[in-house]
Parts: sequence; structure tokens; C-alpha cells
Amino acid sequence: MGGSLARALKKKFPGVTVAGFARNSRSRQKLQRLGLVDKVSSDLEEVVREADYVVLSLPVYVITEYMQKISKVLKAGCVVFDLGSTKQYIHSQAKRRLPRKVKFIGCHPLCGSEKSGAEFSREDLYRGSVCIMTSSPRSSGTRQVKKMWNQLGATVVFLTPAKHDRLLSSLSHLPHVISFCLTSCTPLTYAVQFPKSLKELTRISGSPPQVWAEIFLSNKNFLLQDIRKFREELDRAAQLISRGRQEELGKWIRKANSRHAAIQQG
Amino acid sequence: MGGSLARALKKKFPGVTVAGFARNSRSRQKLQRLGLVDKVSSDLEEVVREADYVVLSLPVYVITEYMQKISKVLKAGCVVFDLGSTKQYIHSQAKRRLPRKVKFIGCHPLCGSEKSGAEFSREDLYRGSVCIMTSSPRSSGTRQVKKMWNQLGATVVFLTPAKHDRLLSSLSHLPHVISFCLTSCTPLTYAVQFPKSLKELTRISGSPPQVWAEIFLSNKNFLLQDIRKFREELDRAAQLISRGRQEELGKWIRKANSRHAAIQQG
Repeated sequence: MGGSLARALKKKFPGVTVAGFARNSRSRQKLQRLGLVDKVSSDLEEVVREADYVVLSLPVYVITEYMQKISKVLKAGCVVFDLGSTKQYIHSQAKRRLPRKVKFIGCHPLCGSEKSGAEFSREDLYRGSVCIMTSSPRSSGTRQVKKMWNQLGATVVFLTPAKHDRLLSSLSHLPHVISFCLTSCTPLTYAVQFPKSLKELTRISGSPPQVWAEIFLSNKNFLLQDIRKFREELDRAAQLISRGRQEELGKWIRKANSRHAAIQQG
Repeated sequence: MGGSLARALKKKFPGVTVAGFARNSRSRQKLQRLGLVDKVSSDLEEVVREADYVVLSLPVYVITEYMQKISKVLKAGCVVFDLGSTKQYIHSQAKRRLPRKVKFIGCHPLCGSEKSGAEFSREDLYRGSVCIMTSSPRSSGTRQVKKMWNQLGATVVFLTPAKHDRLLSSLSHLPHVISFCLTSCTPLTYAVQFPKSLKELTRISGSPPQVWAEIFLSNKNFLLQDIRKFREELDRAAQLISRGRQEELGKWIRKANSRHAAIQQG
């Protein structure tokens, strides 16, 4: 997501200098080779000291660690925004860790894929996408960042951090838990090819471990609620099957059919 | 699936007469309008009396009902095959319900989609697909039907009915239960668009109620085993999340990642 943003910014705003931070020389070389950034350094202070905007594109807990690391170096008026997938924890930490002279703006672009790494970055990733912003729509920093997303072709939706986390638990975090579970219990047989439906259900189980462990843990309460709800639904299905309740099973599926249409079109 | 088979047969074997059975006039008109069959009738005996091959493309329990209905009319040497998604029950009923003068061959083409109905039929559905056959590979009826699948571009894999049902429970029936459950507990909000991953996980929850209720019930024992296994995995995930076990969660996801690769490529 960060790599795609760098590409999109360089394309849309050729006058802007995009600087990247990479700890080890291999990542630095990769960023340079791919032409993602104008300059790249392993010196964090050097990268952010003069920045007007700082983008934190990292796993959730690492985002908050980096807030601490850059807090002393940022210039006054700097706009810091993140691309993290949970928002309550990040906002609470931004308040504690970033100085008041900078503006923190929470962003969560709803795009990206299960593939992570600069080599999968795409200049057009944000075109036609939706970005959720979780800071007050009225602050000047929010307006600046919103304008950037719009210029990159994304639509912005405002939600409070709590509403964001509640919604994303159901729409994204629970589906990821389910996908990891399904992959974990699928027999790796080669008797026949895996059906398309199974491949679709397990595609996101290729998502990166650290990123998703930190999403699950930083949205624990909502996610555990959703897992419980899903489990109740599963138990209900198992009961109907075990008791041979054909008519009720049919009704249950029919109800899912009508909700299915809303999800596929929405 | 039946409609696509009719289309494929008419295309590949222009000399063959394909006759369709449809109970009500609306379905008859649809089959005629779509040009799926050479003739269509609501008189079951008329449709099957002279048939060399009879294809039963219906929900599992309905397949076995129709075995009973046609058993008195079929001519000697007729090859009856089905396209049903569970096989133990169908084979057991074929033994009881069909006369010994006809050959019953169990088939399960692994294609099709969540959309049912003649209007979604495709002449090329079977090209490049896999068809599982669950009758003895050595019988003459099996060889004839296998040849037909091969001529339509499908690869045939032989499994016993029990192995078929065991495997399909994990690869297809459990994923469908999960997809219905997920759709049932997804909030139908329009705050943001539904993520691609959620759409993928819920696509098959648009599958037809009767077909799937009958699949679940006719494969009850294996399916309940698989639901239990999935539930244990889900409980394990919930426990790791609830206890904040970041490292173990990461390991669990990493393990899923490696299995994911095998599924996506297999």
C-alpha cells in the first residue's frame, strides 16, 4: 500500500519529492531499483526531518512504535497520516506519542491485496477505491489529506475510529480469521484440483502474518464479538444438518441468498 | 449443469437427439427458446423410453426420486448417469431403484457456479474441467460415459463413492456452509463498499437452497466431522486473540500461508 502510494504520488505530483525509509540495504536497493521513491535512506531522522507529509504504512503496532521514533524530529505543521487497518488503537497512541505541533490524520484505504511488498505496488491502486478517514472532517490536516486521496482517484468516507473498527471487524477481520481457519483444515490432496470456490475462500489466507496478527489483536473486542456470532451461526447450521431439518436448512440458505445479492452488488 | 451438458452434446455430436424433461410449460418454453434441446416434453416416459443415455441433473434426493419414476420405462442396456454432488447415497439408491438391465454410472463434474437455471448454461462449461466418476472404471457403461466426458474436454478422475464424499465434504460442502454462515452474519451496511475479499468469500452463498440442503443432508456424517474440525480451529484462533498471543498468532498465520500456496496452485 505504501509502495503504491509512492508510485501514485510521483506520477500525479512530479514536483513532489518522495523519500523512503528502509532499514536494511536489501530493501533500500529494491526501492531504488523499482523507482518507487526519489531518495531512500536508513536514517529515519534524515527522511522525516524536512517532510511536509509523513506516511506510516506499516503493521498497526509498528505504526505506533514509529510515531515514538519520529516524534522528536518532525517539523511544526507536519501532517502525519497512516494506512493502518485498525483505528482506535492508532488514534489513542497518536495522541500520546506525537507532539501537538504536528497533525495526525487516520486513513484506511480499502484496497490492497494479500500480497505485500514493494514488488506488488501499483501506481493505479487507489483509482476508484474508497479510503476511510477517521479524523475530524473539519480539521485543516484532514482537508489536505482528503484532497490528496481525491486527486489520486479515491473516494473518502468519514467514520469515527470506533465505527471504523466495528465495521471492519465484520467486513474484513472476521473474513480473514475464517479464511485462515479454512486453509488450516483443508486437506492438501491432489486427487482433484481445488474448486474455484475454495480458492476464492482461501485467497486472503496468504496475507502477511505480522500485519494480520496486529490487526486481530488491536481490534480484539469487536473481533471476538464477531467470531462468537459466526460460531453461533455455524452451530445452528450443524444442528439443522445433524437433525436432518431439510426445510429449515432450505429457509436458512434462502435467507443467505437474499443477503448475498446485497453484498455482491454493494 | 444439465443445460450446459445439453448444449455441449448438441455442439459436439450434431447427430445425437437431446430430449429434455420439464414439468411446467414455463420451463418447457425456456428450454425451447434457448435452443438447449431438440425436443422437450412434460411426459417423462416419452422422454426416456427410447433413450440410450439418461442424464439425471437434479438435486440429490430428487435424482433418487426420478430413478424410481423412470425405472419401469427404461430400455435394456440404457446408460443412466447423474451429475449429483454426493455419491454414496445416490449409488445406494441406484442399486435399490434401478432395474438390473440398465447401467448406472455416478458422475460429478467439478464445475458449475452458484447460478442455477438454463439461462446460465454454457456450451464450454466442461472444457478443461475435471469430472469425478464413482463407478467401477472397468465396466462398459463407465467406459462409454468417460469417453463422452473426454470428448467434451473434461478430464476424468475415479474415486469410490465414499472417498468422493469424504473429499468433497472438505473441498466444497464445508466451504459452502461457511459461506452461508458468513453471509448470514455480515451487516448489510452501505457505509462503505464491501471489500473484494468479502465478496469472494460470500459468492457461493448465492447457491440454490434445495440443491445445497440436499447435499448437506446426504453427506451429513463427513460434513459434521469437517464442521467440528473447522470449529476447533476457530476456537483456537479466538483463544489466541483473546489471550493476546501475538507470536503464536503469527505462527498460525504463517502455517496457513504455506498451505495457501498449495491450494492456490493446486
